[in-house]
Amino acid sequence: MVSERLVVVGGVAAGLSAASRARRVNPHLEILVYEKGPDISYSACGLPHYVAGLVSEADSLRVYSAEFFRTRRNIQVFTNHEVTELSVARRLIKAVPTGGGETKDIHYDRLVLATGAEPSRPRIPGLDLKGVFHVNDLESTVSLKGYLDSERPRTMAIIGGGYIGLEMADALKGLGPDVILLERSAGLFEAVDEDIAALIEKELVSHGVRVVKGSPVKALLGDPQGRVRKLAWENGEAETDCVILATGVRPRVGLAEQAEIQIGETGAVAVNEYMESSQAGVFAAGDCAEAIHLVSGRPAYFPLGTTANKQGRVAGENAAGRRVRFAGIVGTAVCKVFTLEVARTGLNLTEAKTAGFKACAATVHAPARARYLGGKEIVVKLIADRDSGRLLGAQMAGTEGVSKRIDVFATALHARMSVEQVAELDLSYAPPFSTVWDPVLIAAQEMRRELRR
Amino acid sequence: MVSERLVVVGGVAAGLSAASRARRVNPHLEILVYEKGPDISYSACGLPHYVAGLVSEADSLRVYSAEFFRTRRNIQVFTNHEVTELSVARRLIKAVPTGGGETKDIHYDRLVLATGAEPSRPRIPGLDLKGVFHVNDLESTVSLKGYLDSERPRTMAIIGGGYIGLEMADALKGLGPDVILLERSAGLFEAVDEDIAALIEKELVSHGVRVVKGSPVKALLGDPQGRVRKLAWENGEAETDCVILATGVRPRVGLAEQAEIQIGETGAVAVNEYMESSQAGVFAAGDCAEAIHLVSGRPAYFPLGTTANKQGRVAGENAAGRRVRFAGIVGTAVCKVFTLEVARTGLNLTEAKTAGFKACAATVHAPARARYLGGKEIVVKLIADRDSGRLLGAQMAGTEGVSKRIDVFATALHARMSVEQVAELDLSYAPPFSTVWDPVLIAAQEMRRELRR
Repeated sequence: MVSERLVVVGGVAAGLSAASRARRVNPHLEILVYEKGPDISYSACGLPHYVAGLVSEADSLRVYSAEFFRTRRNIQVFTNHEVTELSVARRLIKAVPTGGGETKDIHYDRLVLATGAEPSRPRIPGLDLKGVFHVNDLESTVSLKGYLDSERPRTMAIIGGGYIGLEMADALKGLGPDVILLERSAGLFEAVDEDIAALIEKELVSHGVRVVKGSPVKALLGDPQGRVRKLAWENGEAETDCVILATGVRPRVGLAEQAEIQIGETGAVAVNEYMESSQAGVFAAGDCAEAIHLVSGRPAYFPLGTTANKQGRVAGENAAGRRVRFAGIVGTAVCKVFTLEVARTGLNLTEAKTAGFKACAATVHAPARARYLGGKEIVVKLIADRDSGRLLGAQMAGTEGVSKRIDVFATALHARMSVEQVAELDLSYAPPFSTVWDPVLIAAQEMRRELRR
Repeated sequence: MVSERLVVVGGVAAGLSAASRARRVNPHLEILVYEKGPDISYSACGLPHYVAGLVSEADSLRVYSAEFFRTRRNIQVFTNHEVTELSVARRLIKAVPTGGGETKDIHYDRLVLATGAEPSRPRIPGLDLKGVFHVNDLESTVSLKGYLDSERPRTMAIIGGGYIGLEMADALKGLGPDVILLERSAGLFEAVDEDIAALIEKELVSHGVRVVKGSPVKALLGDPQGRVRKLAWENGEAETDCVILATGVRPRVGLAEQAEIQIGETGAVAVNEYMESSQAGVFAAGDCAEAIHLVSGRPAYFPLGTTANKQGRVAGENAAGRRVRFAGIVGTAVCKVFTLEVARTGLNLTEAKTAGFKACAATVHAPARARYLGGKEIVVKLIADRDSGRLLGAQMAGTEGVSKRIDVFATALHARMSVEQVAELDLSYAPPFSTVWDPVLIAAQEMRRELRR
């Protein structure tokens, strides 16, 4: 009996989840994983903490080795192997060692595309100067860390105000240099509304980070040695010894495109709830794939490790013969910027309107726990649909008690709860942890008042 | 035109919520509140923190004064007034000043019973000795605090291992004395399962509290001056200079019984979802009333300030002419014992079986946040129904990240989610706050495995 073969392209989050799950479901499957980079299974979200020096060794971010997968899970992992071709007609991929070597044809019975995302490089002259880094994988971040340790830059610029840019601002400022953060839009973090973005900006500024919003970077300028020295935008410029590109990512879909696999409206691989692509036997999962947003009901691209792992497992189970569904996402994210915790879930006000809802918002300030025990105020903003009363989204910011509170709203969004239902939740209370009316409930009450107007 | 009159019996949590909400709904209503004690509107849950000295003045626990209600909300509040009779036939109560004075007949159009709960005094000889206190209201707790400050007891005993007993053990131990805590059952906190209770016991013991479980106290013994000196149980005895009764509360339903208002199976006033009692025009809310438990579908008695406030508002709105419902409870509670956070929601394993479910449990240990940032393990135990796959309850314990995580399960219980649905939740992740698979999800995955067995 010849066993079936599962090939997984990409060996970080989704790819390893898929391979591991497929192994659990089917002990007889042959499983091969091809990863372009040198590393598998590391905590991408830990990278800013590594840069900050809070995690002393890059190794502590590595979770499992290729060896672990080979010996313990009977999964063959090939790092430093790029998959250059995919033929769905012949059920074949071509893989080539990145250091040079022979291209091999590998047949598959089932394929999981977990090719991830790549840094979305903005069109700015000077990106190839020395001292310009992206921080999207362990390899590039280790390079940055080496540069910081040897060159000790006095001035640093971060381009992009998403969570990676914000966490890097926090990490770098702690190392001593002047830090400037530039964001081309009016927002910050993962598309929170401007009022919440203003709180993040205030936090950055109060910790000495210069913030330039709403003005795209026009050029990076270097010295005769090819090292970056200056950065210019619409109305200004700043000296800088180091530039970090945190301009987001885009799905890595070259292989899928080549194989004429359908790409969705978001630019990522279109998948159904079983994580199947448009081509039979080909699944896609993680940062290269779309996900259904449970609030808008539309495909969304929201690349995060949490979703990648969940999608990977579903793809792996189904590739191994099961038939399970991926529930979808609600767009939950959290980030720590200096002392501020910021979180979001669901749709922001603009997104909600775009999705066709008659959206309105309400914001409250409420202490995260009893004031007489030192509780600090947090801001909770809710978005709801005026027609149905349904909760559509939540955004929070504060110095304590934000992160897991956003999950209450995320859970409510999964359950399609109305604002009324959220206001009725029987939530935990003790003075060290909340007030008798939890901020979640106070926000829902205010939103309910707004809906009745 | 003669305005209608709303009379509220009881002026702490539910009573004041009812009065305030009724005023908002109807500016013309005459509203009278009668409170037996000297205090209204204080944070009962802050009392252990006051005993511990973390809150320096009892005043900072007082939220609003009777004067505030009179002048700002046009609500007449009579403190130190006991309501001694209720005639529903004549729509009349009799109120008498507790310091002595004339009994007054007060007519009502609508009545809200918010008579609260009273300490459930166990049948133990010696409860009237000097040095024996309960801590169920501000007045009694101020007495205890005075005694602690003047007598400085070297040995203290707490009878009862519910959340008040536990919080008092923490508060008192910090003041220096030897502390013994006695619980007649095998459990601790609000009826958590024995494995979780064992973690609480370990925490108490590691902070020097002696714990005696499963053995009821038989007697308190005094000296010739009538001061408590010793405490005896089945198999032992201990010297003690001070005894705190934390043996729980029972609903104060004397007035309701007298008026032949239906008392439910739990011993509290039976109410429908509008908080109406069996007698027309009489509502009940808070610690004197039942609530529907959304998991068991049965009336429950789970007296907490969070529920009291919610029920009070519903009773107040309806007494003022609206028609709104109280959603019910899921039995959520949290407590801090030294460094341990303990929380529960839904049904415990025994309760779930009693309620007729084919209940089973699963327990996981998982870090509350990234280990490389110092994340500590928390314990998450889930209870689910083997037949339907529905989540029935959750219990958690750990030194961080417990309190608001339990609310995710509470929200899932409100939405009647299956374990499968909980495992699919799109929860927030960043290394300072959780792991990529949040403990909530890891627990749901383990529960799912158990359900498939």
